Amino acid sequence: MAIDAAEVDHLAAERASAQFDVEEMKVAWAGSRHAVEVADRMARLVASDPVFRKDNRTMLSRKDLFKDTLRKAAHAWKRIVELRLTEEEANLLRLYVDQPGYVDLHWGMFVPAIKGQGTEEQQQKWLPLAYKFQIIGCYAQTELGHGSNVQGLETTATFDPKTDEFVIHSPTLTSSKWWPGGLGKASTHAVVYARLITEGKDYGIHGFIVQLRSLEDHSPLPGVTLGDIGGKFGSGAYNSMDNGVLRFDHVRIPRDQMLMRLSQVTREGKYVHSDVPKQLLYGTMVFVRQSIVADASKALSRAVCISVRYSAIRKQFGSQVGGPETQVLNYKTQQSRLFPLLASAYAFRFVGDWLKWLYTDVTQKLEAKDFSTLQEVHACTAGLKAVTTSATADAIEECRKLCGGHGYLNSSGLPELFAVYVPACTYEGDNVVLLLQVARILMKTVSQLTSGKQPVGTMAYMGNIQHLLQSKCSVSTAEDWLNPAIIQEAFEARALRMAVNCAQNISQAPNQEDGFFERSPDLLEAAVAHIQLIIVTKFIEKLQQDIPGHGVKAQLQNLCNVYALYILHKHLGDFLATGCITPKQGALANEMLGKLYALVRPNSIALVDAFNYTDHYLASALGRYDGNVYPALYEEAWKDPLNETVVPEGYHEYLRPLLKQQLKLSRL
Amino acid sequence: MAIDAAEVDHLAAERASAQFDVEEMKVAWAGSRHAVEVADRMARLVASDPVFRKDNRTMLSRKDLFKDTLRKAAHAWKRIVELRLTEEEANLLRLYVDQPGYVDLHWGMFVPAIKGQGTEEQQQKWLPLAYKFQIIGCYAQTELGHGSNVQGLETTATFDPKTDEFVIHSPTLTSSKWWPGGLGKASTHAVVYARLITEGKDYGIHGFIVQLRSLEDHSPLPGVTLGDIGGKFGSGAYNSMDNGVLRFDHVRIPRDQMLMRLSQVTREGKYVHSDVPKQLLYGTMVFVRQSIVADASKALSRAVCISVRYSAIRKQFGSQVGGPETQVLNYKTQQSRLFPLLASAYAFRFVGDWLKWLYTDVTQKLEAKDFSTLQEVHACTAGLKAVTTSATADAIEECRKLCGGHGYLNSSGLPELFAVYVPACTYEGDNVVLLLQVARILMKTVSQLTSGKQPVGTMAYMGNIQHLLQSKCSVSTAEDWLNPAIIQEAFEARALRMAVNCAQNISQAPNQEDGFFERSPDLLEAAVAHIQLIIVTKFIEKLQQDIPGHGVKAQLQNLCNVYALYILHKHLGDFLATGCITPKQGALANEMLGKLYALVRPNSIALVDAFNYTDHYLASALGRYDGNVYPALYEEAWKDPLNETVVPEGYHEYLRPLLKQQLKLSRL
Repeated sequence: MAIDAAEVDHLAAERASAQFDVEEMKVAWAGSRHAVEVADRMARLVASDPVFRKDNRTMLSRKDLFKDTLRKAAHAWKRIVELRLTEEEANLLRLYVDQPGYVDLHWGMFVPAIKGQGTEEQQQKWLPLAYKFQIIGCYAQTELGHGSNVQGLETTATFDPKTDEFVIHSPTLTSSKWWPGGLGKASTHAVVYARLITEGKDYGIHGFIVQLRSLEDHSPLPGVTLGDIGGKFGSGAYNSMDNGVLRFDHVRIPRDQMLMRLSQVTREGKYVHSDVPKQLLYGTMVFVRQSIVADASKALSRAVCISVRYSAIRKQFGSQVGGPETQVLNYKTQQSRLFPLLASAYAFRFVGDWLKWLYTDVTQKLEAKDFSTLQEVHACTAGLKAVTTSATADAIEECRKLCGGHGYLNSSGLPELFAVYVPACTYEGDNVVLLLQVARILMKTVSQLTSGKQPVGTMAYMGNIQHLLQSKCSVSTAEDWLNPAIIQEAFEARALRMAVNCAQNISQAPNQEDGFFERSPDLLEAAVAHIQLIIVTKFIEKLQQDIPGHGVKAQLQNLCNVYALYILHKHLGDFLATGCITPKQGALANEMLGKLYALVRPNSIALVDAFNYTDHYLASALGRYDGNVYPALYEEAWKDPLNETVVPEGYHEYLRPLLKQQLKLSRL
Repeated sequence: MAIDAAEVDHLAAERASAQFDVEEMKVAWAGSRHAVEVADRMARLVASDPVFRKDNRTMLSRKDLFKDTLRKAAHAWKRIVELRLTEEEANLLRLYVDQPGYVDLHWGMFVPAIKGQGTEEQQQKWLPLAYKFQIIGCYAQTELGHGSNVQGLETTATFDPKTDEFVIHSPTLTSSKWWPGGLGKASTHAVVYARLITEGKDYGIHGFIVQLRSLEDHSPLPGVTLGDIGGKFGSGAYNSMDNGVLRFDHVRIPRDQMLMRLSQVTREGKYVHSDVPKQLLYGTMVFVRQSIVADASKALSRAVCISVRYSAIRKQFGSQVGGPETQVLNYKTQQSRLFPLLASAYAFRFVGDWLKWLYTDVTQKLEAKDFSTLQEVHACTAGLKAVTTSATADAIEECRKLCGGHGYLNSSGLPELFAVYVPACTYEGDNVVLLLQVARILMKTVSQLTSGKQPVGTMAYMGNIQHLLQSKCSVSTAEDWLNPAIIQEAFEARALRMAVNCAQNISQAPNQEDGFFERSPDLLEAAVAHIQLIIVTKFIEKLQQDIPGHGVKAQLQNLCNVYALYILHKHLGDFLATGCITPKQGALANEMLGKLYALVRPNSIALVDAFNYTDHYLASALGRYDGNVYPALYEEAWKDPLNETVVPEGYHEYLRPLLKQQLKLSRL
C-alpha cells in the first residue's frame, strides 16, 4: 500500500489564486502585527511540546483524560514560570493547549470574583495565594435545581454571632451546587453563592470564600460532600473538566470570608451596605461577555477552516462523464452554505474587537460614576453573546455536515469542536433568557421615544423612528445591494419596525407584563434583528477604517456583503413582512449573493489561512494545511484501541459460538 | 441527605389535565392495537433483561463498548431463537436493544442486497447461511475517496478467464473501502461493489460476494487488510459499531460470486444483461427510505418526550416575587420551540406510515412492469428522507438546549441521541444531493406541464398550475388558518411558484445544465417547499380518516395545524416573496400558532406518553416517566469512574507539587 508521504502542498494552486496579501489579512484578523507574532510564537511552543499532544484525546478513558488535563495544566504552569511569560502570552499558551480544565475557572471566575467583590483587605489576603496556585479556586453558583434564576438559589449562609461565623448549608437535594468547573476533583477553594441570613432575615444571594479540601492531602473537609457530576457530550470535549457537585452539612467559615466589597455583616450581625455602587460589577460582566464573543469567532473560524480546506480537496461527481471529478467547493450549494459561515467568522471577530473597546469605555465611565449607558451596554453585550454563540454552535455542526461522512469521525476534529463549544449557548446566561432581556430594554426604549428621550450607542438608530418607519429601500439592481448605506438602513428599518410591532401588540394587552409574556416568541425575533443590525453595523464601520495590505479591504468588503445579504435572505420574512424591502429586492439580494460567492471562491483558502491556525490546534485530518487528507485519515484510523488486535476481544465468547451454531439455548 | 425515594408520580397532575384518551392515542401512533401490544411486550422484555442495560454505555472504553455490543447481539439472537420470535418481534427487540452493531447491516443491507441482486441460485446458496448466522455479512460500497458518486468507485473486479475467477483489487489509497458498518471487526463476508472489468473493458459498478475472514479463526484471508476506522461523534453512540476499512491485494473469488440477477459474465468472459429490468431495484430503495423516515419520527419523539417531561418538572423564575417558580413548559418561548417539534414527530410518523403503503404500492406496480410512477416516487422518497432527517437532527439538538445545562450531561440521554442520529443526514444519500435530485424532477415536471403531460401522485397538484399561480389566500381572521383547504392551497401555491421561478431563471441561462448548477441553492429551497407540502398533505389526509378514541382526533388536528403554521412562519419569506399570502395573513398565522400552543399545553405530557417509551429505552434521567428527575441525576453522577476515588489519580504527581510550590522548574 503506497501512502503518499511526499511533502506536497495539495492546496498550492488554491493559495496561488488568492487576490490579496495573506500576511496582512493575518494582521487584520489578529488585530495587530504584535498579536500575530505572539500568537504564532505561543501556538508553535504548544504544538512542538509532546506533553501537549491531542491526537489521543478522544480515545482516553474519563480518568485518564482527567489525569492528562492535570498533567497539561501543571506543565503549562511550569512553562509559563520558566519562560517568564507575560499574562498575554500565558493566556495564549492556555488557549492553544485547548483542553478545558480547572485553571480556566481559577483564572476566569475565582480570581475575578475576588477582585470584583472582595474588599482591598480580602484581595490582599487571597489573591497572592491564587496567583501562585497555593490554592485552586472555582465559582460555585449554579445548583441542581437552579440555573438562570440566581435569586432562587437555596444554599444558606446563616450568621452565628456567638462564634462570629457563617454556617453554610445545603437544605435540600436541589440546593446541591452542580456544574461548577474545577469543583469536582481539583479545587481547594470556591466562591460559594448562598442566601445570607442574619438576625433571622434573608438578605438574598451573596458570595463567600469557602475552603473545600485539605491543603495537606486534598481530602474534603468535614461536612463537605464533593464529586464529579458525570460524563458530558462528546468523547474528549468537556470531559477533561471536573464539573462538580457540592453539598454542605453546616460548614462553618469565619465572617471575614464573606465577599464584602458591596455589603457587610458586622460583628454583631447587622447587615450593612457599603458606599460602593452595585453597578461597578457590570464591568466584569461586559468583560466576560466580550471574551465569549471572541471565543465564538475562534471556534467558528476553526470549523470553517477545516471545512473550507477539505471542500477544496474533496471531489465529487464531474461535469463531464469520465472526466476528473469536481472539487466540492465549486458547487454553488456548498458555497451557499459555507461562505456565509466564513463571513460570519470575520463578522464575529470584528464585533468582538469592538466589544473589547466597549469594555474599556464602560470601565472608564463606571469609574467616573457615569451609569447612563449601562442599560444599552447590557442589551448589546447580552444580545451579542446570545446571537454569536447560537450561530456558532449551529455553524460548527453545519461545517461538520459539509464534510460529508468523514466529518463524523473524531479524526476530523469537528465532533469534538461541536461538543466542547455548545455549552456556550447555556452558560453565562441562557441565550433565550438573555434575548428576552434585550427585548425588555428594546420595549422600554420604544416606549420612551415619544417622551423625547434619545436612545444612545447601539440603540441610537431608534431615535430615527419617523424616517425608519416610512423609508423605502431604493435597490433596483443587484449591485445596489453593495451600498453599505442601503444595507444599513434596511437592517435598521427591519429591527425598528419589528420592535415597534411588538410594542404595539403588547400595549393592546390588558396588562403589560402579560402582554410581554404572551408575545415573547415575537420579542425573541425582534431582539435577534436588533443584534444582527449591530453585527452588520460594526462590520461596516470596520471597513470605514484604514486597512492596509494589498486587496485586504476588498476581500473584507465582499465578506461583509456576504454576511449582510445572507442574513437578509435567511430572514427574508422579517424584511418582507415589515415592508422594508419588496420581493423583487429580496430576489436581487439573493442574486447578488450568488455573485459574491463567485468572488470569494478563489480567495477562500487564503481567507482561512489568515486565521493562522497550526495543524496541532486544528487537530483535524481534514483541515491539514497541506491538504494531504486521505493518508492522514488512514493513519489516524489505526490508532484506535479496537485495532490493537486483528481478531476482536469477545470473538471467542460471542461471535464464534454464533457462527458455529453453538449458542447455549434454553428452549422454553 | 434525603433523597426522595417515594414512588410518586411527579407528573400526575399533568396527566390528569389531558383532554383525550391516551391509550387510543397510542394506537393512532403505533398504527394498530396489535402494534401497541407487540411493541410494549418487546420493550419490556428488553428493559427487564440485565444484559441489555444501557446506563454505563457512555462510560465504557471503545473496546469494552464493542465487546458489550457483541455480547448483546449474541444474547438478543439467543432470546429470538429461544422465544421463537416472529420477524416483527425480532425487529422490535433489536430496536429496543438500541445499540448500533453489525447485525443492523447483516439484516438491513447484506441480506437485502443478495435478495435484490442475486439470482435464485445465489439466494438459495447464501441466504440460509445468513439467516442462521453461519456467516456475518456487511455492505462494502463507500470508499475513502468516494461517497455519493457511486460511479466514481475505484475498486476493481477483473475477470480472469484462465481460472474463471474475479480478481478484486484496491488500486489506490482512496479506493480503500471505508465506513461499512460491521466490516471492521465482525463480518466474515461482504457484498463488495467494484468496477467490473472483462475483456479489457470497464462495465461499471457491480456487486460481488466476497469472503473476508476465516470461518475457523476469524483472521483476515490472504490479501485482505481489515480494520476499524476509529472513533466517532459521541461517547457511546455509534462507537459500538465497527465501521471498517478494507483493502484488497488481488484477492480471487469464483465467478459465481458476482451478483448476477441483472447482468452476468459468462465462462468466456462475455458481459451480458439479463431480461430483469433494472427498475426492480427501486423497490429496495423505497423500502430503505421509508424505514429511515420511520426512524426519524422515532428519534425525534424520543428527544421530544425527554424535553417535554423535563420542561414540566423544571421551574425557573416566577410571576410573583417569593412565590413558587413557574414550570418552564408554561413559558411561551419554550412552547414556541418545543411544540412544533412535538407536532413534527407526529407529522413524520404519519408520512412514514404513508410511505409504508407507498412501498407496497410500488412493489405491486414493479411486479406488473408498470414503471410510470417511478420518477415521482423517487422524488418523494428521496426528498422525505432528506427533509425528515435534517429536521430531526436539528430538533434533537434543540430539545437538548431546551433542557438547559442538564441536557449537556450524558445522563440526560440527549447528547448520545444526537450523536447516534446525525449520520442519517449523510448515509443512504447525502441530504443535499437528494434534494437536488428532487429539484431535477421538479424542473422536468414543470417543463412538461406545457406539453400537457399530467403529473401524478405527490406531484399531481402541479397540474393545477393555472389556478395556483393566481390564487389568493382568503384568510381574514386567525381562525381561518384552521381550515385545512386553505393551508393546503397556500403550501401548494408556495411550492409550485418557487419551482416555476427556478425554471424561469434556469431557462434564461445559455445552457440548461449551467443554469441548474448556478441556481442550485434556490433549487434546494424549492425542493424543501415541495416536500413540506407532502408532509402537510399526508397529515391532513390522515385526519380525513376515522380515528377512534375520545379527543384523539381533536389533538391530532391541533398538532397538524401547529406543524403547518410553524413551517409557514419559519419560511415566511417564501410565502411572502411568492405572493401566496400577505404580511397581514402571515401575522394572523403567527397569532393562531400562539393560540394553538395554549391548546396543546394541557395535553403535552399525555401526547408524549402516547409514544409509549420505557424508561430503559429513553435512558434519560430528565425524561423519566415519573418525573423524579433530581434524585436520578444525582445518583447517575456517582457512577462516573472519576468518582471511584475522592482524591483523583494524578493528585500526587500534578496537583500537590503545584499547590506546594514544588514544581521542578528548569530556569532558562
